Amino acid sequence: MKEYDIIAFGTGSAMNIVSAVLNMDPRIRVAVIEKDRVGGICLTRGCIPSKMILYQAEMAAHVAQAGRFGIKVNGYTVDPMVALRRARHLIEEESSMIERSLIEHPQIDLYKGVGEFVDEYTVSVNGEEIRGEKILLCTGSRPLVPPIPGLKEAGYVTSDDFFFMDSLPKRWVVIGGGYVGLELGFFLAMGGRKVTLLEMKDRIAPVEEPEVSAVLQKKLGEVMDIRTRHKVVAVEKRGDRKVVVAEGPQGTVEFDADEILVAVGRRSNSDLTKPERTGVETDERGWIKTNEYLETTKPNIWACGDANGKYMFKHKANYESQIVFHNAFLGRRVKVDYHAVPHAIFTYPEAAAVGMKEEEAAAKHDILVGYYRYKDTAKGEAMMADDDYFVKVIVEDETYRILGAHIVGPQASILIQEVVNLMYTDDESAMPIFRGMHIHPALSEVVERAFYSLAPPHGHHHHHHHH
Amino acid sequence: MKEYDIIAFGTGSAMNIVSAVLNMDPRIRVAVIEKDRVGGICLTRGCIPSKMILYQAEMAAHVAQAGRFGIKVNGYTVDPMVALRRARHLIEEESSMIERSLIEHPQIDLYKGVGEFVDEYTVSVNGEEIRGEKILLCTGSRPLVPPIPGLKEAGYVTSDDFFFMDSLPKRWVVIGGGYVGLELGFFLAMGGRKVTLLEMKDRIAPVEEPEVSAVLQKKLGEVMDIRTRHKVVAVEKRGDRKVVVAEGPQGTVEFDADEILVAVGRRSNSDLTKPERTGVETDERGWIKTNEYLETTKPNIWACGDANGKYMFKHKANYESQIVFHNAFLGRRVKVDYHAVPHAIFTYPEAAAVGMKEEEAAAKHDILVGYYRYKDTAKGEAMMADDDYFVKVIVEDETYRILGAHIVGPQASILIQEVVNLMYTDDESAMPIFRGMHIHPALSEVVERAFYSLAPPHGHHHHHHHH
Repeated sequence: MKEYDIIAFGTGSAMNIVSAVLNMDPRIRVAVIEKDRVGGICLTRGCIPSKMILYQAEMAAHVAQAGRFGIKVNGYTVDPMVALRRARHLIEEESSMIERSLIEHPQIDLYKGVGEFVDEYTVSVNGEEIRGEKILLCTGSRPLVPPIPGLKEAGYVTSDDFFFMDSLPKRWVVIGGGYVGLELGFFLAMGGRKVTLLEMKDRIAPVEEPEVSAVLQKKLGEVMDIRTRHKVVAVEKRGDRKVVVAEGPQGTVEFDADEILVAVGRRSNSDLTKPERTGVETDERGWIKTNEYLETTKPNIWACGDANGKYMFKHKANYESQIVFHNAFLGRRVKVDYHAVPHAIFTYPEAAAVGMKEEEAAAKHDILVGYYRYKDTAKGEAMMADDDYFVKVIVEDETYRILGAHIVGPQASILIQEVVNLMYTDDESAMPIFRGMHIHPALSEVVERAFYSLAPPHGHHHHHHHH
Repeated sequence: MKEYDIIAFGTGSAMNIVSAVLNMDPRIRVAVIEKDRVGGICLTRGCIPSKMILYQAEMAAHVAQAGRFGIKVNGYTVDPMVALRRARHLIEEESSMIERSLIEHPQIDLYKGVGEFVDEYTVSVNGEEIRGEKILLCTGSRPLVPPIPGLKEAGYVTSDDFFFMDSLPKRWVVIGGGYVGLELGFFLAMGGRKVTLLEMKDRIAPVEEPEVSAVLQKKLGEVMDIRTRHKVVAVEKRGDRKVVVAEGPQGTVEFDADEILVAVGRRSNSDLTKPERTGVETDERGWIKTNEYLETTKPNIWACGDANGKYMFKHKANYESQIVFHNAFLGRRVKVDYHAVPHAIFTYPEAAAVGMKEEEAAAKHDILVGYYRYKDTAKGEAMMADDDYFVKVIVEDETYRILGAHIVGPQASILIQEVVNLMYTDDESAMPIFRGMHIHPALSEVVERAFYSLAPPHGHHHHHHHH
């Protein structure tokens, strides 16, 4: 049986750790196991290709609105396949490059297949058994496909397949109103496809603040048919058509589609890797249990990224990979800190958030809430920003410690960062905003103004009219 | 002679102070003197209308590039007068609103005319003499018009007139490559006008880092004819044409124009207000001397905004107005701090900067410099960001205190803010960037990556290829 210093599951964030370790000690032997295309979810079927195609959608939104600014466009057409092919080309190029570098690396053995634990520290892959002294479980996640009768038979795509489609048919039903469904649905809609999006809960983007969901629903609802409280109960194939049957507030409704995108969430890969056989505990959904040092319940086995089921974002995985490196290979005891993990939805408008939502913050602290509309800033007015776009910030009363921020509007994913940084200072205070300056009239003024409007909760929501 | 508690010069940033004072003590009597349209430079002929028209130019840049992303535009035309009229409408509406509120305010007398000191604390305006116990010299600035032979006779516009033009002729010569010339020139160019921009110095945007100037010159040079080292020596009127004669490296060159925009800088208004007659000293260029509490050399007279000649930006004026309020009316002794006054140029690409430039920083400190290209981030790649767009950050070695940041590329004016905020923490440290997270793949990653690439100077510039 081959023995390794490290067995790394996955070629995503695990590679951060492996390359840091090899930089430190070029003699160690590493087994890398990858069941899919090399490069990890983010590169091969996640953040990177999705943001690439979404930039087309954002540009299409600008072209569509150019007339408002005195730019007369004599018609235009959007070819979403141009964007999709560009994304696919990038994936294939980068993935092959990474794969080649792994294959050629003298200290690394790349196993392309599903790794399955068979015993303590022992993994079977492609019929071979290998043993590792330390094991990195960066096993990622995969799209959750709900057991909807007829779905499998009718056929569907998930974000795993989407970027590799050779054509994009005309009519789509997107099942799921989380960020994947919203982003890919928005891309399709801006690419001239007819999109119906079905969400079981009473609002899309249900992990966001309710008022953020409301704005997204209104704005994205201009290009997609968004139906909340619609639970898909069956799919039927009728000739070429796929018919999605959903139960909604008005009873059973049928939606015709040429293709179905399933985007209802992600599931653990532990059913494939079987970490319990080496003594690594998982929770009831299969996510690997980790402590604050990112140790699993078994010594010398660490987990990071989606595998632990917490904040499934690439930047969180990168962050955790640094912690695992410090704790597993530098003998440190660094604690993981999730108090300010930001995230964004890259539609147009974008949404971005960090830290606590208002309800959670109010339950734990005396809070002040600041709220400001894009439109009420000079740059927002210049952009003819929608009435609904806003920044909301939440601080602890008296200390002015920042607890959270929530933004919906263009450039939200950039605007949020000035708040995120302050949440990583020693006192997490909002005071630097008050002491400092914001460029006038940059869009960031909307963040500054939100802080300047801090007041006890409830006083704010009347600003948030829906016309 | 009418006596006031406060005489305020100008209806720009002075109004921040006046309204704060009136909030505190509604009985005080205030004289407000305004020689121009009410509202201050920023609103009536500066930041606000310029950003409004520049948004059209930015959108036109997107439409022009849409084809690269698979959006086929069947021709388009840009009507810059639509943007100009919109800006003018905003100016007129907001200015009248402010004027009305001043006229109707029971404690305020609005004097529309040039206020000129005639004696200590005594001002003559519209033939009337008034006296103030405290005086706020927020006298602003006005475009500097150089004594070029023939210029006056041929006729020209400055940023004072630009937003009120009834038409925009076809061929323009812009004299001056600072931010006003660049912004208005870019707007005209994107609006289909032929623009020649003449800059006396060896680079445009000469207050920026040299490599920022280089990128702006290359990119803006794609839509304007930019000539550096060209000194305008004469203007001649020949029939309908205006001929601008410049001396450049190849000798004398003539440029034909229908209109000339003069944008060579700004000058003090002290020649009009004559503050020396009340004992307020000015420097050799007429800017009012202020100490670190924003006191002038005469007790009970304060200055803020452009009037002191330092960092002529509206956000700096707003910041100073708060300090004057605290020091003049709350009995505090707050010192002014200019170590992190940010600014931006709102062309496409944008440029933004805060703090020291590399040369200045290296002369004063042991420094580390971080440099990263937009293109080398996931979002930069999605945007097909130009090879040249970059973020440069400068920190003090060992302490990691942030000394400056310089950005050229789309959204620079927003991206810079996360750095600005950290420069207003107690230790001004870059550490929160390293401890925290940046959303992947938001454009802000380019700032994070610049910090992650910190190294001693000189190691960086080889990254900055020009292809």
